Amino acid sequence: METVIVGLDIGGTYVKIGVFDREAELIDRWQLKTVEDGKVLVEYIWNSIQSNLPSEFNCEGIGIGIPGFIDYKNKTIIEAVNMRLYNFNIEEEFKKYTDIPVFIENDANVAALGEFWKESGDIADMTLITLGTGVGSGIISDSEIFRGKKGMTGEIGHCIIDVDGYKCNCGRHGCLDTIASATGIVRAALEQPIGDSLELLDDQEKTRRNLVAEDVFFLAKNGNKHCRSVITHAVDSLGLALANYAAIMNPEKILIGGGIADAGQEFIDAIAQAFHDKALSEVSKNTIISKARLGNDAGITGAAYLVCKNNQITAKDINKAQHL
Amino acid sequence: METVIVGLDIGGTYVKIGVFDREAELIDRWQLKTVEDGKVLVEYIWNSIQSNLPSEFNCEGIGIGIPGFIDYKNKTIIEAVNMRLYNFNIEEEFKKYTDIPVFIENDANVAALGEFWKESGDIADMTLITLGTGVGSGIISDSEIFRGKKGMTGEIGHCIIDVDGYKCNCGRHGCLDTIASATGIVRAALEQPIGDSLELLDDQEKTRRNLVAEDVFFLAKNGNKHCRSVITHAVDSLGLALANYAAIMNPEKILIGGGIADAGQEFIDAIAQAFHDKALSEVSKNTIISKARLGNDAGITGAAYLVCKNNQITAKDINKAQHL
Repeated sequence: METVIVGLDIGGTYVKIGVFDREAELIDRWQLKTVEDGKVLVEYIWNSIQSNLPSEFNCEGIGIGIPGFIDYKNKTIIEAVNMRLYNFNIEEEFKKYTDIPVFIENDANVAALGEFWKESGDIADMTLITLGTGVGSGIISDSEIFRGKKGMTGEIGHCIIDVDGYKCNCGRHGCLDTIASATGIVRAALEQPIGDSLELLDDQEKTRRNLVAEDVFFLAKNGNKHCRSVITHAVDSLGLALANYAAIMNPEKILIGGGIADAGQEFIDAIAQAFHDKALSEVSKNTIISKARLGNDAGITGAAYLVCKNNQITAKDINKAQHL
Repeated sequence: METVIVGLDIGGTYVKIGVFDREAELIDRWQLKTVEDGKVLVEYIWNSIQSNLPSEFNCEGIGIGIPGFIDYKNKTIIEAVNMRLYNFNIEEEFKKYTDIPVFIENDANVAALGEFWKESGDIADMTLITLGTGVGSGIISDSEIFRGKKGMTGEIGHCIIDVDGYKCNCGRHGCLDTIASATGIVRAALEQPIGDSLELLDDQEKTRRNLVAEDVFFLAKNGNKHCRSVITHAVDSLGLALANYAAIMNPEKILIGGGIADAGQEFIDAIAQAFHDKALSEVSKNTIISKARLGNDAGITGAAYLVCKNNQITAKDINKAQHL
């Protein structure tokens, strides 16, 4: 019977599921639509794993990454606002169906763990900034997830950049999240008329209502001054937040990931430039900024690695998965 | 022959020297004027230790805290701007005189280590913010000094609060240091006329030229509106910087230390209030802000504890020094 590991990346819209062998080779992957009720979600995921995993497979563990405040020791989601989950013990829920061990971490930590494993060399202090619907970060310090006692480290998206800025979902004003997330970029773009530029977009059905961050990047590249200033403000704010972050954390490498990181190398270079312009000289000299490698696979890869780490399979054992 | 430990707190103005026994009881203390030349400074310190330490004492180690970028492994001061020391290997310099082991750390880390040792209970993640000539911080994470690979963590004084702010010694603009350090507070106070209020000060010889931060606090308390707004700005900026800091580091406790922390409980309370107003709710709930306990002794105590840690004397062994 072959032993496999399941990595789950639970997001606000989709649950991505990856099945890995013990050498971390990706065997299978699929995704489900996220449902809001936690109990229903776990049942739904478990049914999907059961029906997709051939019966001859023995599952060694389920690793989970999910956005929110996580108590990894008690395997409890303290608060996952987007999914409306509060004080939800996911291990207990899985135990209704299976005895397979479950491990859970904040999604940003899990993604950082995935990227960290793909980093070569002697990098021990690394940060992954995820620019998606929100801005998150996962911190690897001395080769381990840096959690803090309450598991709430790396909330760079909720560093305040502009005290007089736009109101954030967290209730405060001017968080980085309101400026540099996909949501923040679209909101800022829609603050001024951009109607005349919409015809530039491929999708002729595009309206202001369904504008996405990629469109704002596209319009900026194609001469829309307002969209360009929105992107410049996001880049400058990211540079400032990362400079302040690096003054505190002193990482060797900061990786930019998440959907927005696909806006092009030019965007990553601009963030790096803004960072180096604003960072303390000694910090700037010692910090590399680059694009994350794993893209959408960071979550499932890191979630699988979470199981490996907990089951004490070393990175060396699973260092074969170069194809991911 | 009694074994002792020497703790050095090297500052821009004074070198504080504490002699502790193996149970960390303070046996003797004194201070020297700091001299700028590194070689002269070490000779001067060594001569002073020799002439003050009775010959029947056997010194087990010299722990050193010094402001600047420190390579603790190679016992090298990479950059200590105030003392004009660059790439200075302090161990090599001491070796010219003695074989006593030398340990060195950034002064903020050393002070945090001293305060950490005095904390009771299960605190494992603690930060000491030092408000003095500059603003520094020392981070204890999981009961150890949090250094980052290059030993340059916790530079909260160089987090940029106002991109259009006053030029900092580091060459950038609007660092917390320019707003909330003693230097920054005095500079801001002198930006507007405060002449009429000077008569309030005890020292009748006081002039604008030798105004110190304590005077600004005194004038603020006694109704000078400009000085009050300078302090309010420092408090708000500290609150914001600490809120952003805690969003990343998630400490259980933030201690406010340094000369300015003596401005009164009202000042500490105002910083705590500004922090809780601006911090992410989940972070605010889990972070205590209070005044540091050791005052001027944090440096020598932490420096001595540095020797103990390196020589693997446990905190329990030296837990008797309640008199400090």
